[in-house]
Parts: sequence; C-alpha cells; structure tokens
Amino acid sequence: MGSAARLTELPAWRALTELRGGFEGRTLRALFAEDPGRGERFAVEVLGLHLDYAKNRIDAEVLARLLELAEQSGLRGQIDRFFGGEAVNTSEGRAALHMALRAPRGAAFAVGGRDVMEDVHRVLAQMTGFSEQLRSGAWRGHTGQPIRHVVNLGIGGSDLGPRMACRALRSFADGPQVAFVANVDGADLAAALDGLDPAETLFVVCSKTFTTLETLRNARSARAWCLSALGDEAAVARHFVAVSTNAAEVAGFGIDPANMFEFWDWVGGRYSLSSAIGLSLMLAIGPERHREMLDGMHAVDEHFRSASFGENLPVLLALLGLWYADFWAAETHAVLPYAQDLERFPAYLQQLDMESNGKSVDRDGAPVDVPTAPVVWGEPGTNGQHAFFQLLHQGSRLVPCDFIGFARSNDECEDHHDWLMANCFAQTEALAFGKTEDEARAEGVPPSQLPHRRFPGNRPSNTLLAERLDPATLGKLVALYEHKVFVQGALWGLNSFDQWGVELGKALATRIGPELRAADEQALDHDSSTNNLMRRYRRWRSG
Amino acid sequence: MGSAARLTELPAWRALTELRGGFEGRTLRALFAEDPGRGERFAVEVLGLHLDYAKNRIDAEVLARLLELAEQSGLRGQIDRFFGGEAVNTSEGRAALHMALRAPRGAAFAVGGRDVMEDVHRVLAQMTGFSEQLRSGAWRGHTGQPIRHVVNLGIGGSDLGPRMACRALRSFADGPQVAFVANVDGADLAAALDGLDPAETLFVVCSKTFTTLETLRNARSARAWCLSALGDEAAVARHFVAVSTNAAEVAGFGIDPANMFEFWDWVGGRYSLSSAIGLSLMLAIGPERHREMLDGMHAVDEHFRSASFGENLPVLLALLGLWYADFWAAETHAVLPYAQDLERFPAYLQQLDMESNGKSVDRDGAPVDVPTAPVVWGEPGTNGQHAFFQLLHQGSRLVPCDFIGFARSNDECEDHHDWLMANCFAQTEALAFGKTEDEARAEGVPPSQLPHRRFPGNRPSNTLLAERLDPATLGKLVALYEHKVFVQGALWGLNSFDQWGVELGKALATRIGPELRAADEQALDHDSSTNNLMRRYRRWRSG
Repeated sequence: MGSAARLTELPAWRALTELRGGFEGRTLRALFAEDPGRGERFAVEVLGLHLDYAKNRIDAEVLARLLELAEQSGLRGQIDRFFGGEAVNTSEGRAALHMALRAPRGAAFAVGGRDVMEDVHRVLAQMTGFSEQLRSGAWRGHTGQPIRHVVNLGIGGSDLGPRMACRALRSFADGPQVAFVANVDGADLAAALDGLDPAETLFVVCSKTFTTLETLRNARSARAWCLSALGDEAAVARHFVAVSTNAAEVAGFGIDPANMFEFWDWVGGRYSLSSAIGLSLMLAIGPERHREMLDGMHAVDEHFRSASFGENLPVLLALLGLWYADFWAAETHAVLPYAQDLERFPAYLQQLDMESNGKSVDRDGAPVDVPTAPVVWGEPGTNGQHAFFQLLHQGSRLVPCDFIGFARSNDECEDHHDWLMANCFAQTEALAFGKTEDEARAEGVPPSQLPHRRFPGNRPSNTLLAERLDPATLGKLVALYEHKVFVQGALWGLNSFDQWGVELGKALATRIGPELRAADEQALDHDSSTNNLMRRYRRWRSG
Repeated sequence: MGSAARLTELPAWRALTELRGGFEGRTLRALFAEDPGRGERFAVEVLGLHLDYAKNRIDAEVLARLLELAEQSGLRGQIDRFFGGEAVNTSEGRAALHMALRAPRGAAFAVGGRDVMEDVHRVLAQMTGFSEQLRSGAWRGHTGQPIRHVVNLGIGGSDLGPRMACRALRSFADGPQVAFVANVDGADLAAALDGLDPAETLFVVCSKTFTTLETLRNARSARAWCLSALGDEAAVARHFVAVSTNAAEVAGFGIDPANMFEFWDWVGGRYSLSSAIGLSLMLAIGPERHREMLDGMHAVDEHFRSASFGENLPVLLALLGLWYADFWAAETHAVLPYAQDLERFPAYLQQLDMESNGKSVDRDGAPVDVPTAPVVWGEPGTNGQHAFFQLLHQGSRLVPCDFIGFARSNDECEDHHDWLMANCFAQTEALAFGKTEDEARAEGVPPSQLPHRRFPGNRPSNTLLAERLDPATLGKLVALYEHKVFVQGALWGLNSFDQWGVELGKALATRIGPELRAADEQALDHDSSTNNLMRRYRRWRSG
C-alpha cells in the first residue's frame, strides 16, 4: 500500500515530474506577478493556526497534482488504519496510537479490538493526583520539606518533548522548577544538580524498559547523590518516581510501584509527549494547563482525520516538503520559530522527523527510490538572522523554511514583539523576492559591490502564525508536525514508527565500553581507525 | 587569486573528478580491507589534538590530489596575505586579523603597516583590570552590593562565541553567574532576568556600532528594569558596561566611557570571541583561564600558518569538507560533540561557517560554479543518538560528521565517561562499516526484519580527540574551525569576511515594523502573501 515503488508510478507523480521541468525559471517574483491573489489563495486558517504557503514554488496546477498524489497513494486509507489502531508499525507488529493519549473520555480508540481509553484516563488521573499532591506541598521529601525542584532523567523521546514544552510554556509554569538531564556525560547531571538541595528535589526517571543506558546511569548517580545527603534508603521512594512499564526494575531501584506511571507499546518514544512522559511538564504547569495542551493536540488529530486534503494542514505541509525533497533535491528543512521560548522546537522536530522517516527501505523491505526525510535544523529568529541566514539568502543551497510566529507576546515589553515579527515577515519577503542588481544600483550601491549585494530570491518558505504561544497552541503545533511526518512516511511507504537504525551503534558501544576500561596492552580487534582511537583514549585516560 | 572559476580548471581538480568517478562502490569496508594500516596513516596529532580521518571516502591518491589542489589554488599565498594584515575582506576594504587578538606581546601583526599589538594588549589589560575588580568584589553596584550576576546583551557574534565558551568552560567558572540574552523577543530578556536582583546585576552590552536593533532594545529594557528598582540614573554607570566602538552612543546611554571595551574593524563579529566580546567569559573564568584559551588559539594560528598542508589540521579538515561538498554533493555537515558542555558548539560553528562561506559569488563578483558552505548542524552525543542518528545510519542523505570527544571528564562520575566515549567510537564504527544482511541473518534476525536491520555503512566521519575540555583546548578547537573555514573560502575564491546577505531582511524589517503598529485599515503594498500575514497579525494584535 502506497509503497515508494508505486509512488513514482502514480499518474500524479508523472504529472509532477513534468510540471517540475516546466518550473525552471518560474520564480516566486514571476508567480506573484502572474497571480496577485495567490497570497489569499494559498493560505488556510484552521483552529487558530494560520498557514501561509503562498511563498512556495507552486502554482494551482502543482498543488492540484500534489493533492492527487495524496489521494492516489491511498493516504486516506492509511489514515483510517492509523486511527483505527491497526499495527502500522509493521516491523514490530504494533499500533501507533498516540492520538488516544489526548482524546477525551468516551472517544473510541482501540488496539487490536481492545479499548485503550480507560487505561489512558487512569494514568492521566494518576498523574493529576500526583501533580496536585506535589504542587500543593502535600507531597513532602524525606526530611519533610516540600519539593521545589524536579529533575527529569530521560533521553530521546523521554527528554526532547517535555524539555521543549517546559521551555515553550515557561510563562505558564507555576510549579516546581524543572531541569532535564539526558546525556550519559557526567557534565549533564553535574550541571543540573549544581546548587540543588537533595531534600527538596524529586527525580522523574523516564525509561520505558528501565534499562536505557544513559538514563539508568544518571538515575543511579542521582540516587547516590540523594542518599549521600539524606542517608536513608527509604528516601528513594520520596525522591524518585518513574515513567516506565518495568515494575520489577522500578521496585528494585527503590521506587514505590504506586508512583510508576505507565505507557504502552503503542506509544513510540518520539510520539510520547502526550503520554506519562509529560509528567514533568504537568508538574511545572499543572493538570489544567496540561489538559489544554492535550485538547489542542486532539483538535488537530480530528482535523487531520476529517478535513479534505486541500484544507488539511498536516497534509499540505507534508506535500510541500515532499515536493522539495523529491522534485527539487532539497536535503534540509529549516524550522525557524520567532519565539525564544520555542528554542528547542527544532531539536524536538529533528527526532520526530528524522527518526521517523530517515529510512531508505519501505514497509515491505524494498529500497525506496526517492529521497526521504530531510535534515531538519534551525534556531529561533531573530538569532538565526545574525548567524546562518547569510547562507539562506545568498548560499548555494535550497533550504525550504518554516517560519513560526505569534501575534501576541507572553512577555509584553515595549515594542520588542512588533520588531520580532517585523523581522519574521521581512525575512520571508526577502527570501522570496530578493533584490536584483538593477534595484541595488538604483539604491546607490557602488558597482564593485553590486554582485555581492544582489539577492537571488526565489527561496521558499511557509509561515505559521497563531495568536499566542499557550498550551493549546503548542499542542496544536506538535500534533501538526506529528501528522505531517505521518503523511510523508505514508507516501514514501515507510514504517515511520520503528527505529532499527539506532541498534547497531548501541550494540557496538556495549562491546567497546569494557574494552576502554581494560588494561592498555589488551589487544583490540576493531578496524585500525577505531583501534587507534581507543588506544589513544586509554593512554590519555590512564595519564 | 584562487577564484572558483580557476579552481575547477586546476589539474588537481580534474584529477579529483576522475578519482571520484572511480570511487563508486569503493566502500570504507573495502578501503580498510585493502589497507589495514590506514587507521595509523590517516591520523595526525598536533598540539594535543588527535585527528582521525581514516573513516573518510579517500585513499592516498585522493588525499595527495586534495593537497595538490590546495597548493595549486594559491592557498599558501592567501594564508600569507591573511596573516600579513592585507585587506582580505575585499568588498569592505578591511583586514581580518583575529589572530592578532590572541598573540603574545611582541608578536608582529600590523594592519596597513600599522602595528596593532599595542591596541590589543591595551584592551586586554583593561578587560583584566575590570575583571579583577568585579571578581574580587571591589567593583560594587549602585547600592554597594557586589555583582553576582552578569547578563551579556548581544546577538550573532556578540552572543554565540561567549555563550558557547561559558557553557564549555562551566567547570572553570568561579566568578559571577553569566546569562546571555540575544533575541529581540521579550521572552528572552524576561527569562534571563527572572529571579535576578538589579542591585547585584551587571549588563555587558555588546554591539560594535551600539545601534544593533535587538541588542539596543534589550539594553534599553534592561536599563528600565534596573532603574525601576534602583531609581537613580547614576546607577546605570555601575550596572552597565559596553563592548563597542561608538563612544558617543555609549556615553549617551549612561555608560562611563572608561568602561567601554573596544575592538576594531579588522575583527569580524563571528571571529570576535578572542576580542573584548569575550569580556563576559573573562568575568566568569578569570583573566588567567581566559589567557589560556587565547594561548590555545594562538598555538593553532601558528600551526596553521607554518605546518605543511599534509599535517595541517585546518587544511585537512577543509579539504575533506570540500571533497564531500563538491564531489559527493553532500549538502550538510554534522558536528557531534560527545561533551554536553559543548552543546552550543554546533550553533557557534553554524555562524562561523555559514555566514562566512554561505555565498555564491566570488571575491571578483563572478558566480561560483560549485557548491559552497554546507548546512552545519548537530547536537551533543549521546543525545543525538536517540534523536536523529536513525537518519545518519539508514537515511537517504550523505552526512559527513565530525565527532569530538575527550579522554578525561571534568565531572568524574562513576563509569559515565567511558560509556560516553564508547558510544562515540561505536557510532563512527557503525557508520563506517554498517552491517550486511548476511551478518544480520547470522545473528538470528528474522527474515522479514532483515531489510530493516541492515546498515549500509560507508558513512564518513572525522574524530577529534583531546585529553580534556579545558580553556586551552577550547581555544584550539575554535581556531581550528576558524581556519578550516578560511581555507574553504580561499579555495572557493570567496570573501569569507563580509555578510551582505543579512542586509535585505534588515532593511525590510525597518519598513515593516512601523506598519505593524499602524491602524488596521492602513494600506499595505508588499506582495499579497506578506500583506495577508501582516493583516492577520494586526487583527490578532488589536484583539
């Protein structure tokens, strides 16, 4: 179904290949001149998300063919099976049903015929109860002090989502201070614990299996830090909770199983922000704000499931991305939030997109014959303007961009916000339309500088605008990109829900770890480069 | 000299084009099998930096031709003119002589025949004096309290370098806490000031011209915050200092000109970490540690200037990067520090590389006929492994990587560090050698999973290893990448020291800013997309 081999044989694909050929030289300048109404036509507003996609290398014909491609690829059926709880994660035989996590009570989500909504709301109620206890001060540390600091220990999906969201919703945080530690590098834990009082600190250990190397090492070191101050093994149960499914390991660590928050094999790590993995976020902003975020996600889930493709935000973003990746050979996609509080949103999307669709083999095991996920990258505007925007404007690479901005600030501060957004709009305009040598000359640019001060333009972007960065809006943005990634994976025929590509490095590290600690003279039988590096490491290490 | 038009006509370029053709199918597996000694041969250790570049798609022949390309392009002469203080920034008629900033007294650096070393050491002495006063508590705030918090206000080069370095050298910080605010988004300043006491806070305003939109708005809002607490205009002189050249504006702001730290037009923003822009860093780590960093940079400057190309670290890294960008169509370059404290190093390198060489026109104004700077991106390992490494291993993109690691930790914590570095080495091994279907089958992988659990390998990387992340080593790393970027710019014939590409967006923002604040009905005459977005913004904004 919709595997890439078929994708490139669809009539719409062939039509797009032809249209692409005819697009050479049709710049955004020309397209806007031809059709001055395209600004209104290529814009859609849904659920308070305003998407402007007029500054793309498309015309009505291209858009129509892209939408046909989606229809012809069987996307509609794939969406139905996805929402229907079928095992869309084929290589592992699992569903991917994160939409159930944010659905209201009574919604119909089932996996293999078994309703999951009761489980979902049971865990949400458990999270809510714990959050209320901790936030009210009813939950106390071992010495009777209230908890003022929470440290989330997790990596990948157990880190990037709640970390991104805690920063994004900084203005809504009224609970304990939350810090995040992911890296096995001792520097990460040391920096986070610096200045904290163990008596006032709670650790949330997030690991589905409770065996993740980085997280468990950090958890054990945090446990030692805690006990070296509090002295009593019983303290662990007051200062550690777990988000996991491995009750035996959790209990063995010293955590009260009543404080283990569960999720399920149909929740992938990178799709887990709306699961119990969001506990640290809920502790920071409270259950009500957290529910607003879930409701925002749910609203986009319903939109995605039901809207026609031509007005369907995730589908539109996905098709535009595919157009650049497969027909224009764009290797990257920049995400540029004009909101400092979204500073980790690009890093969050890196995992979401690149771990889901950074694959070259389709669900049936056949090679995909077109490029798949791009490298996703970005930093907040206006900062990026003073860093890498030079390349976006005048470099040799085609980098399609998503600009994300808000009409109102959560930190009203003179005219800062208008200047922030003036820059956002100005950048999309400058990228699209550039400046000719004639225009530069007319402005008085000296002849020797003209080639350097010319801007080729024709550099595409989307702009996503919303009223305010609040929990509901953040939820909508997350679900929007989740489903964009789903659509692209569906069209390419990928299984977006496995991640076998991380296994080999893990296995090799398990072998190398003990070898690094062995005596200098112990022989190594890796390749000569890895051997050489390991020897150098050992020599320095043993000083 | 060395313009790109000539580059592609050099004999070495033609030889490389042929070699590239013959390289199809010669995998890293095959190359290591052919030549088991390549691990030792393609490694070089200089100044305590160990570079392994054996896991690249090169053989001795390719390397020899790349080195010839450097010779034939006139790189040696370009290096001499660069160090000689000639106006290598041709479009602006300026030198780019950041090497003088870290040279010892008595070194011979001159711009236009005028020695600059006296100026350099005068400002360093001024910085040292101020740092000692502030760090010792002799410098007091307006109410007599010592300064416990420093907030650096700057953007681009006035932010990324000191921000990166302050985090990198966290373990060496024994002065005031330093925070960084760059974005005009009020959220950035609000988050940084949250919890700070104006009576104990010093602002370092970094803007060469003292007119940068973001920085000056943040400075004015910080000034208001300061005065709303301290009440007295005279407080400004005790709580604000400037890194700038605009004495009139600085004095007008209320800063004592004695506390203006100068730099010069031969210091580009992205090359300014070793200038007075490093003041916040010096306040954090002290003048002695800061000098160690400068000495590390200087050591690499001297290495770069004098070493033969075959042992010259910046030249080797530059040639390998050019090989992938121009002969293998790699669009990106990943920087993966296995050190959490280097978490902002990729963002720092983004500006360094993409703003320097993200250009398509050579120094003479002619189009460059090959791809130039890649998109630089990355996150620390091991975090990235749980995010985007899936794409590196099994995706459809060729992403050359730099792995950076250290043999000793600044935060000894059980076995964390060995596991960190075991992962680093394992990833380079997994990327290079992959895993065949036969190997997976032999491990018992079920047939249906085989295509998903096969790793194509042949994915290149460099590994940079040093003993410890300390000030001198950080300085070496920074200078290494600075000169790598110089070499690539020199070969492509670019002026790596201007950044005209940022001007157009700035100009358009200046126009849009007041329009956003105007009445809803005021007509707009941008393109229909920008108009539409601005109207949406205005409606939401006015509620």
